[in-house]
Amino acid sequence: MTMKRAATSAIRAFTSSWKPAFPSLLTRGLHASPGSKKIVGVFYNANEYASKNPNFLGCVENALGIREWLESKGHQYIVTADKDGPHSELEKHIPDLHVLISTPFHPAYVTAERIKKAKNLQLLLTAGIGSDHIDLKAAADAGLTVAEVTGSNVVSVAEDELMRILILARNFLPGHHQVISGDWNVAAIAYRAYDLEGKTVGTVGAGRIGKLLLQRLKPFNCNLLYHDRLKMDPDMENQIGAKYEEDLDAMLPKCDIIVINMPLTEKTKGLFDKERIAKLKKGVLIVNNARGAIMDTQAVADACSSGHIAGYSGDVWYPQPAPRDHPWRYMPNQAMTPHISGTTIDAQLRYAAGTKDMLEAYFKGEDFFPQNYIVKDGELAPQYR
Amino acid sequence: MTMKRAATSAIRAFTSSWKPAFPSLLTRGLHASPGSKKIVGVFYNANEYASKNPNFLGCVENALGIREWLESKGHQYIVTADKDGPHSELEKHIPDLHVLISTPFHPAYVTAERIKKAKNLQLLLTAGIGSDHIDLKAAADAGLTVAEVTGSNVVSVAEDELMRILILARNFLPGHHQVISGDWNVAAIAYRAYDLEGKTVGTVGAGRIGKLLLQRLKPFNCNLLYHDRLKMDPDMENQIGAKYEEDLDAMLPKCDIIVINMPLTEKTKGLFDKERIAKLKKGVLIVNNARGAIMDTQAVADACSSGHIAGYSGDVWYPQPAPRDHPWRYMPNQAMTPHISGTTIDAQLRYAAGTKDMLEAYFKGEDFFPQNYIVKDGELAPQYR
Repeated sequence: MTMKRAATSAIRAFTSSWKPAFPSLLTRGLHASPGSKKIVGVFYNANEYASKNPNFLGCVENALGIREWLESKGHQYIVTADKDGPHSELEKHIPDLHVLISTPFHPAYVTAERIKKAKNLQLLLTAGIGSDHIDLKAAADAGLTVAEVTGSNVVSVAEDELMRILILARNFLPGHHQVISGDWNVAAIAYRAYDLEGKTVGTVGAGRIGKLLLQRLKPFNCNLLYHDRLKMDPDMENQIGAKYEEDLDAMLPKCDIIVINMPLTEKTKGLFDKERIAKLKKGVLIVNNARGAIMDTQAVADACSSGHIAGYSGDVWYPQPAPRDHPWRYMPNQAMTPHISGTTIDAQLRYAAGTKDMLEAYFKGEDFFPQNYIVKDGELAPQYR
Repeated sequence: MTMKRAATSAIRAFTSSWKPAFPSLLTRGLHASPGSKKIVGVFYNANEYASKNPNFLGCVENALGIREWLESKGHQYIVTADKDGPHSELEKHIPDLHVLISTPFHPAYVTAERIKKAKNLQLLLTAGIGSDHIDLKAAADAGLTVAEVTGSNVVSVAEDELMRILILARNFLPGHHQVISGDWNVAAIAYRAYDLEGKTVGTVGAGRIGKLLLQRLKPFNCNLLYHDRLKMDPDMENQIGAKYEEDLDAMLPKCDIIVINMPLTEKTKGLFDKERIAKLKKGVLIVNNARGAIMDTQAVADACSSGHIAGYSGDVWYPQPAPRDHPWRYMPNQAMTPHISGTTIDAQLRYAAGTKDMLEAYFKGEDFFPQNYIVKDGELAPQYR
């Protein structure tokens, strides 16, 4: 698709489904102090791809498109992909950076130890959604502010989830692999290809992404279920056409298709272990674009091998990047990709703009849009508690 | 997914979105004459897959699940996958068969020559939708009846089209190929991955499948366009949220994504030739689950190679099965499969039931459901004229 159109449509999408950060009327104390700041951005390297699309902002080379603006204001802006270990480029800047920007696609892991070393650190920004790469408790204890560009890529992720549901239900990949290997065997695909219509789809978590997914699923005439901390108000529930399941373990065995839509927290880590997977319907399909560590890696691989899980698709792994020997690369009936769903060109335009908005507010000592805060005044946002 | 559930949900889907053939109250002359009939079914071989799913009806081995019923009524039922050439099993039975059943997934090509040889032939049934494997004019001239199980797999195909739109827009396959080849390079995917939201999607043809696709696209907040012989009534248009484009060549250059949803006829054969493709937006994505021959094969391959078409996905080819050297197997940015979208397990249950209904009506000399007729009393159905 062409560049110009991408920008236009991203802006349209922006206005239709995303609320930007805004400087509130209150000017209560943020952490900014006057003067030049040292800002470090951690993104993936795009190399030869960086110049292929002027809207490809979320990479090291294009650095969210904010370099000129930051430098014109007298700030220092260091950008790197080299993020892990004591000799990394990031580690060098930990002692004196004021702001660290990272993304879930190539996360800068911010441990308690790094926070302790980062004497000047005030603000941790996620360009995108999901701040589990940060030790949030340590950040809260240190009085740091952690914020995301809430909403910036929820549509992107929800669309991608629906794609993955269909890829698994329709048994797409074996068919495509036949094409590229010169074969033609309809039976080998068809014996386990199903319509989505009429199936029971349950989302574990119905926050912004879960709701957008349910809305997109509605015309497919499925039986839609959702589990969440909160029941939707009846109007919303009715509009979305999904039934609330308070008890997760009561919902899961009803589902033909399960979609994971909750953050990674101490409570959700390893939630899908061997025992819980064993209780799922035989032949269940699972889509997980939330976080890899919500699943027990080996338990998922074993259940795909046994056929108990008939298909598993997602773009999240633990750790990231996934090592070459990660078992999910080799298990049968997987439709995995690298962490990509939230970093479409449209999403990049939105989270780059949202990050810039928050930096601007920070420099002025103004508040962010309330929903962007993950840690504020020593408190974690509810979904991370 | 489990077998039992598949059957249940197929039945649910059946009742929700498909009208079966029904014996009308009128008993005006069909072609059936009393006595035993010779019925030949042409399906794909499933081999080891035939026994893997009891609902896998659309293959040679399971023969639509109607063998016992037909034989109990004294009819002869021959089933084969060997369909092409003068020495094929099908050719042997041409001179004396009364009914020929075939599917679009493994079509028995019924030429004028075969029709001339088939002195007993009365009825040609397509288990599924799309009867372009039959020389319809020759069938009409010979006074044959041609009928399909209209509606039996429209949901299946529409769901599959939406999957393919997303696979192309999100640049899914390069990401998956990274996973299986041990790589991790988010940039190589992201620089050309887009949200569907905000894009202009046009369907060429808005019959049953096109309408179901538009309904499923509605929550994605796209700009939806359709071209068809007929404008929808204003209520339907409003409900679907798509804008009518009377002039195909005025619509096409507006589209970021084009979906082909019309039958193959003398008028649509080769419709997307080099000249028409050149007028499309650079970077257009095309989904075609209709018929391969609507496209100029080499023109599509060339436009994918040049990048003018940024992605092409579909399950239809010309001819079928696609030979090993078919250029669409090798062109860049293709997300092709063998012909599969209309032959999900759910669709098979529906078109097997619909074929049985029509045979039953034929034996009784009763009419089919009117929408099932492709050729009746020497006349072609409107979409094939």
